Parts: sequence; C-alpha cells; structure tokens
Amino acid sequence: MEKTDDKNQQQEEEQVVNPWEVSAKDGGKIDYDKLIDKFGCQRLDQSFVDRVQRLTSRPPHVFLRRGVFFAHRDFNDILDAYERGEKFYLYTGRGPSSEALHLGHLIPFMFTKYLQDAFKVPLVIQLTDDEKCMWKNLSVEESQRLARENAKDIIACGFDISKTFIFSDFDYVGGAFYKNMVKVAKCVTYNKVVGIFGFTGEDHIGKVSFPPVQAVPSFPSSFPHLFSGKDNLRCLIPCAIDQDPYFRMTRDVAPRIGYHKPALIESLFFPALQGENGKMSASDPNSAIYVTDSAKDIKYKVNKHAFTGGQESIEKHRQYGANLEVDIPIKYLNFFLEDDAELEHIKKEYGAGRMLTGEVKKRLTEVLTELVERHRRARAAVTDEMVDAFMAVRPLPNMFD
Amino acid sequence: MEKTDDKNQQQEEEQVVNPWEVSAKDGGKIDYDKLIDKFGCQRLDQSFVDRVQRLTSRPPHVFLRRGVFFAHRDFNDILDAYERGEKFYLYTGRGPSSEALHLGHLIPFMFTKYLQDAFKVPLVIQLTDDEKCMWKNLSVEESQRLARENAKDIIACGFDISKTFIFSDFDYVGGAFYKNMVKVAKCVTYNKVVGIFGFTGEDHIGKVSFPPVQAVPSFPSSFPHLFSGKDNLRCLIPCAIDQDPYFRMTRDVAPRIGYHKPALIESLFFPALQGENGKMSASDPNSAIYVTDSAKDIKYKVNKHAFTGGQESIEKHRQYGANLEVDIPIKYLNFFLEDDAELEHIKKEYGAGRMLTGEVKKRLTEVLTELVERHRRARAAVTDEMVDAFMAVRPLPNMFD
Repeated sequence: MEKTDDKNQQQEEEQVVNPWEVSAKDGGKIDYDKLIDKFGCQRLDQSFVDRVQRLTSRPPHVFLRRGVFFAHRDFNDILDAYERGEKFYLYTGRGPSSEALHLGHLIPFMFTKYLQDAFKVPLVIQLTDDEKCMWKNLSVEESQRLARENAKDIIACGFDISKTFIFSDFDYVGGAFYKNMVKVAKCVTYNKVVGIFGFTGEDHIGKVSFPPVQAVPSFPSSFPHLFSGKDNLRCLIPCAIDQDPYFRMTRDVAPRIGYHKPALIESLFFPALQGENGKMSASDPNSAIYVTDSAKDIKYKVNKHAFTGGQESIEKHRQYGANLEVDIPIKYLNFFLEDDAELEHIKKEYGAGRMLTGEVKKRLTEVLTELVERHRRARAAVTDEMVDAFMAVRPLPNMFD
Repeated sequence: MEKTDDKNQQQEEEQVVNPWEVSAKDGGKIDYDKLIDKFGCQRLDQSFVDRVQRLTSRPPHVFLRRGVFFAHRDFNDILDAYERGEKFYLYTGRGPSSEALHLGHLIPFMFTKYLQDAFKVPLVIQLTDDEKCMWKNLSVEESQRLARENAKDIIACGFDISKTFIFSDFDYVGGAFYKNMVKVAKCVTYNKVVGIFGFTGEDHIGKVSFPPVQAVPSFPSSFPHLFSGKDNLRCLIPCAIDQDPYFRMTRDVAPRIGYHKPALIESLFFPALQGENGKMSASDPNSAIYVTDSAKDIKYKVNKHAFTGGQESIEKHRQYGANLEVDIPIKYLNFFLEDDAELEHIKKEYGAGRMLTGEVKKRLTEVLTELVERHRRARAAVTDEMVDAFMAVRPLPNMFD
C-alpha cells in the first residue's frame, strides 16, 4: 500500500512532459524553469534574440522576441557556424493524427518558415505516419492519408519548394535512412528508452522501435539526395519542448556514430482555450481553434470558451483590472498579434481595467479570423501536384541560396 | 543462493535452441523430439515424402528422404493448395556474418533450390545485414559487403534468376516492406519478444526492433514488384529449426493483420566435425568444412577432426564394428552422398567392422571435395553483374512457369 500511495503522491505532485503527455502539477501551469532544469537544456535569453537579428539583418520573429521559443540546445553553435559562413539545415516534423490542424500545430511551422527565410537554409519535414499508426491505432492507409492532408496545411505555411523536402516515414524509411536507424538503435538499450519514454513491457515493440526513426533526420547522411558529401552539415530542430526526450537521446548517440549533435530551439506549449494547464488536445474540439474553423466558430469559441482573467462584474473589473497572467485572449494575442505597440497598449489598458474582456476577445477574434482565413486560402491553393512536388525525392540545387 | 542453484541446474539440464544459441543438454545430442514438442511444430513423416514425390513427379531430395528436413508447420496446407493448382512462394535467408560459408550454411539453399525446381515457384532470399550489424557489432558497410559476398555463394547454388529475388535489408527495407514491419510491430508486446527471444533490458533496442524485419518477407504484400494483387499467395519457409521462434511470432500475428500464416519446413542442424552436440560455429574454423577449403584442407579436417564411431584398435573394430550413432563421417555422408545404395552398403560394412574408419573418411573426403570444388567453380563464375541482376527490384513475369 505504501508504494502505491507514494506513486499517487508523486503523480499528483509532479508535472509530466513527454511526447505523448503534457500535464502540469496539480492541474496548474507548466513550470518551464523546472522543465529546463530537468531536461538540461538552456534558456534562450535576449542576447540570442539580438544576435539573430544582427546575423539575419531582419527583425526577429514575434515567437522569438516574445519568448515563445524559450529554450535551446547548442543554438549558439549553430549561430557561431553561421557567422563563420558555414551552413546548416532545419528539421521539423508532425505526427499526422488528425485531419485538421489547430493553431498550436501551426506554431513550429510558422517559426520554421521564418528561420528558413532568415537564414536561407534547407529544411526537411518528417511526417511520422508510422508513429501515429502505432500510437493512435490508425490503419497504415489512414495514417498516410492524414500525412498528405497535413502536408497541404504545412505547404500552406509558405515554405520554399526549392529548399524544402517533406517526407512520410512509410514512403521514405529505407536505404541510408534505415542504415542510420540501425546505427542509432545499436547505441540505445531498452532500459534507456524506458528511462526516457516510460515504456512498459505491455507496450508493443513498435513503440520501442520508433525513437530511432525520429532521431535520424538529425543526420545529413539520412538524405543522400540532399546532403551527399555534406556529412558535417549541422542540423537545427525547431520544436515544442515535449519533443526534447527524442533529441536528448539523439544527442547522446550522435558523437558515438560520428555525427554532430543536432541543435534545438524549443517552444512553450500553446495553451488550451480553457486555460494554461497543459497542451491543447486535438481530441477536444472546444479546447482549440482549428484552421478549418469558420469566422462564426472562432467568435463562438473565443467568447464562450476562452478563459478570462477579467473580473466577474464590470464594476470589479474597472476597480481591479484583468489578471493577465491567466488570461487566454492575452496569451493568444501574445502569439499572434504582430504589432508590439498595440499588444502593449491592450495589456496596459486591460490590466488596468479600462478595457473590458469583451473588447479584448473581439480583437482576438479579428486576429485569429484573419490568420485562419489566410491559411484557408493558402491551403485551398495547394494542389495534389504541389504535395507530390514537395515530397519528391530530389536534389535541391539552390537550397543554400 | 537457492535461486542461483536452481538456475544453474536448469541451465545444465535443458537444451537451448534459439536463433543465436544452440546447445544440447549436458553437452549431449539435441533432442529433436523434445524440440518439436516445445516449439509446437509437426514431425514430417514418410507420407509427406511420398506426397511430394507424387505431386512433383521427381525423386524427393536426399534431405527430404533422409529426414534432414524433419519438421514442419502447415506444409500440408501448401501441398493441398498446390494440388488444387494454387501457387505459393518460397522465402529463405541468411545472416551474413562471415566471409566464407560452411557446409551447414549451404543446406537450406541446396534444399530451397530443389523446392524451386520441383514446384516451379518464385523465391525471395533475405540477407539480414541489419541483424548482423546489430548482433555481431559489424559496421554497416562491412555487413553490406558480407551480404554481397554471401549472395555470390547463394547464387552459386544454382537458383533460377527468372524466379529469384535476393535482397539486403539495408537496401530493401522501406515502402510496403516497412509498412508490414509496423503492422507486425503493433501486434507484439515487449514482454512477448522477451518470452520468445530472451532479450534483457540491457540489450539494445535494435534487437527488439528486428523480429518484424525477419517476419514480413512471409507476406506477399512486402514485395509489390513481385506479388502485387496476389495478397493470398501462400509462403513456404525452408529453414533450420533454430529459426522457428521468429516464425512462431509471425504466425501468431499473420491472421490479425489479414495475412496467411507462413508454412515452414524445418531441418536438423548440420553437426560439427567434433561431434553432434550442437550447431557448427563459424568462429571455430576446425568445427566445419568451408566452401573455401582446399582438397588438402578437407582431407586434413576429416582425418584429424571428424569424430569417429570406430573402435580404437583394428582388432576391436573388426570385432565390435563402428558406432554409427555418433560417427560424423557417416552423418556427413547421410547429408551429401546421394547414392542411397552406396550409403546403405557403407553403413552395413562399417557398422559390422568390415570397413575401417579410414576407408569411410576417404570416401567422405572424396564426396566433400567434389561438392566444394563444384561450388567453388560455380561461385567463381558469379560476377558482380549477376549479383546486381539477382538483387534488382524488378518484376519476375515468368516466376510461376
């Protein structure tokens, strides 16, 4: 009994962050400082933001200057190399578990597009249809269909086809990629993956086999059609911090098989509409704004479900002002309202009680509607031929231009 | 302490047979009847031999009529289907862990060639360079080199290029093959592979990931260039019985993912020169005759190392005769001397003490030298272009003719 109690107590007290579960301590907020300590990554401070601005000669992305991407591993090495005139490549990905993406899904892609444009570097995007087939118990065919549907949303983010290779694991695993999978698998014991990912003996072996699949896009030799003869090319991975366990494992293995450790730049989780106590869930439609939501849907969801830090009566609100720390409309605007001055103005007025919740929600609805409409138009323009073109295994002769 | 004693006692008492270890109880002979019971396969009795002869209108292979292939799973279903006019395909393979094959390695290939010729069916041969890279700690490149070298020995066995596809896992894993790997992996828990293969937490995850790789050549959909639209084609696997664990797992999974269970026809182990207490080991050169051995090597090994059932003096030998049960020259002749009448004659005369050990060893030396010389000539004629041709991913339009 004592053991069970200990375990329950531990579950209640500790936050859990891994690629399949994000839950805060006692249903509260994720403690990101604690996460950085536990994972052993570094805080991305203002000096990085300034340095990126200087090196790329363009304003840093809103996600960078507002601390959405807040942690890193060896990002300094990437910038050092870039400053010396060396190139690198970007690697990001998506597990295609659902038809429609929500706004949280778009964040790494919006940021990766900025990095691609700012640094003029090639990008590989992994669609882990194999992972979703195994974890979500989808059929192979359904996972592949979702991968292609999601590829359309990704392409709609505006990636440069002359610098971008999108691949599905079911299509692309094999050859040089599979050789690297085996090299990684040889370096990782079962006990190690249990420690990192928490697998049990009743989990199927597909789960145990998967971490090398997500690891090896970190190595340029996995893409001979792109990086043949460029084994020293560094890799930078923009991702949400729940993916860190995969790349901790990858970084541990990399030098043992003769590769650079991939660098990481890691984001906060985009909060659920109901409040910031974890990651949004694609399985609860009211927890998120989807890229398929209509203007009416967005208005309804924001008004009805967005957790507010405003006071319960206008009188109290005028008197005490809104609690910006817990207010979801403010957090969402922090992600998606590009105008820094306007955001500061809203925070000041709303925090002081001079602006009402309804007004902030109205502005958020406008911002999100514009974002979603723009995405929808871009996605409607993505043809099957464009998906085939992005996913074609082909050299990218101008990928560093 | 008690637990340790129990374990030691158990190890001493039980024979161990799995894909990586074969050891008999107390250093004695492998008890094949016990193995059949434990594995749950069936004895291949005379009625099968007669039926194969009738169906193929040719004499059954020496390995069949002398009980070298002694066990099966669902071989009757294969023969039923064949009798109804349905086709099947053969699947065998090799883990390329060494440069030169020994005679034991040739046995499944010699038998498979007979099956291909007799039943006029296509054949896929898997070279598990990934497995050997992981278990023997070879580099990827060395494993691939050995795979190609071994492919030459396999081709030298005389397979029909219009019906045979040889593939290396490092080259071929991917696409439809990888999809089937994932389907299999989803159906097998970690506890299950521990039960079947005895992995521990300190084993690397490559080992845990591998069983699906050996499983999926059992399914025609893993070879879309050969069997597209033939998902119902049955598969027959000739192999030594130590491979049974892989295919027990495969047969367990097959119906759950909509495929036929593969049928098996399973051989005894070819004994070491020093006597029949296990499987030959490629790491002890004097335990085996290699296909690269010269006539002189063969003569020396047979005379010096072949364990004999003859008596210690000529007088005693004339009086008591040889013990054929333990005599290695007789066992080897049982595999490789095709002439049944001559073999019977030798056994009778030698068992009665009228023929001496030296005479039997001389005849064995002739038989082995001829076999090895014939193999060496055939192998010398195998060019790199022929290897490429056998390993090309291509349709085989006449594979059932």
